[in-house]
Amino acid sequence: MFELTFPVRFDDVDAAGLVYYPRLLDYCHVGLEDFFTAVGPCSYAHLITVRRRGFPTVHLEADFKQPLRYGDTVRLVVRVLALGKTSVRFGYSLHRGTEPTAAATAVVVTAYMDLAAGAAVALDEDVRTALARHLEP
Amino acid sequence: MFELTFPVRFDDVDAAGLVYYPRLLDYCHVGLEDFFTAVGPCSYAHLITVRRRGFPTVHLEADFKQPLRYGDTVRLVVRVLALGKTSVRFGYSLHRGTEPTAAATAVVVTAYMDLAAGAAVALDEDVRTALARHLEP
Amino acid sequence: MFELTFPVRFDDVDAAGLVYYPRLLDYCHVGLEDFFTAVGPCSYAHLITVRRRGFPTVHLEADFKQPLRYGDTVRLVVRVLALGKTSVRFGYSLHRGTEPTAAATAVVVTAYMDLAAGAAVALDEDVRTALARHLEP
Amino acid sequence: MFELTFPVRFDDVDAAGLVYYPRLLDYCHVGLEDFFTAVGPCSYAHLITVRRRGFPTVHLEADFKQPLRYGDTVRLVVRVLALGKTSVRFGYSLHRGTEPTAAATAVVVTAYMDLAAGAAVALDEDVRTALARHLEP
Repeated sequence: MFELTFPVRFDDVDAAGLVYYPRLLDYCHVGLEDFFTAVGPCSYAHLITVRRRGFPTVHLEADFKQPLRYGDTVRLVVRVLALGKTSVRFGYSLHRGTEPTAAATAVVVTAYMDLAAGAAVALDEDVRTALARHLEP
Repeated sequence: MFELTFPVRFDDVDAAGLVYYPRLLDYCHVGLEDFFTAVGPCSYAHLITVRRRGFPTVHLEADFKQPLRYGDTVRLVVRVLALGKTSVRFGYSLHRGTEPTAAATAVVVTAYMDLAAGAAVALDEDVRTALARHLEP
Repeated sequence: MFELTFPVRFDDVDAAGLVYYPRLLDYCHVGLEDFFTAVGPCSYAHLITVRRRGFPTVHLEADFKQPLRYGDTVRLVVRVLALGKTSVRFGYSLHRGTEPTAAATAVVVTAYMDLAAGAAVALDEDVRTALARHLEP
Repeated sequence: MFELTFPVRFDDVDAAGLVYYPRLLDYCHVGLEDFFTAVGPCSYAHLITVRRRGFPTVHLEADFKQPLRYGDTVRLVVRVLALGKTSVRFGYSLHRGTEPTAAATAVVVTAYMDLAAGAAVALDEDVRTALARHLEP
């Protein structure tokens, strides 16, 4: 379990005055970047730009229960839900301030992709080891 | 069934060189706006800013099968899959160029929300009538 | 002189309810893409991804006179103000609906850059010829 | 002088592989929000959503000298360059990592705007006092 906290930004809202929902998935990706950089064998930027591997999303399920607004602080929890041979299932929950109940949750299935080949590949051993250490029981 | 076609923009890609996946959901929202404006009793902007009602997303399921890249033209198909008392289920499929198979699909459940009250309300009659005319059999 | 017209999108506004000003520069870039694709020897996407050349911004001056809001239609005028050996100065004006006075204007100096070398290069002859045909007197 | 440091995000780059230049102005706005929240009489979100006042940009000049890329850390310096009766001139410089020379600089003239009235107003006394304490000599 990995957490980060950040404010909703001035531009994150839409014309309804609520955080635009694709932005919530953007928040989740920021969480993936920070999580991987904190626990992985290299930063996510290094994985992408030097190793040329990454975790594109292949399937996504999300629930949006409470809107977020400008002025809210967001607490994002990142979880590793499952490790496949060439895929990882991440779980995200977004909380408003210190509220224990999530305002939004997402389950994101990613493929481990070799960017040059444009194809899914087996997780590199050091990546698998790092993620396995954070696998939810 | 409602279609729109547009190019991937210079800024739509991420550091992997593929269209950033939250952007694909942004594309779907553009489709919702254009669809509603084309078939509804008023433009989506009028619904939001004058009637103060809208369709925030409450549940989302999406599959990303093929990446999109800068230079691609996107064909987006918008469908009304189901009408509830206070909710609408929209379906989206994103195609690369003239490919018949979708590069990505999404099912988005929205609540019909009164923005001032911050609560779901029954679909206005003229909105329901307009959407019902496009309901998939 | 090249024009395009498009609606302000649901997500283009900020928490003040006005189009977020970096988004106005984003609009100008869309104008550059569409202008180049319409008048150039190839699409802007082809220039970037195949020729590996582009027009990064090196200097920018902009004035924002009237805010734009959700529901507004934007008319964007793109002009070629000056052609240097390795640079092009573009002018943009953004109008609300059919208003003759611009809501915002920008002058953007771009370098013609070889993306692989990461350095400014002389404008390719066919690019120069195409842009020269649209140079403001 | 106020500084913040943050990473370039996965989605901040464009199809040329460089941080999209409107995103750099977005970074500057994040700097404004964090600066105001740190030194002002209230958070920037409170200013916008409760006091209903803000600092829309009316004039902008920017120079982009070196591109930023995914993997770079950005150091952003925010300065108050001038205080008018109803306007504030902010200066921003964006540095790559620990480089002393700025990769980009911007001078942004903002009006102090009453959002309900849609008009510039004199700076509130507590806002003026807070910003004056940080005015560059």
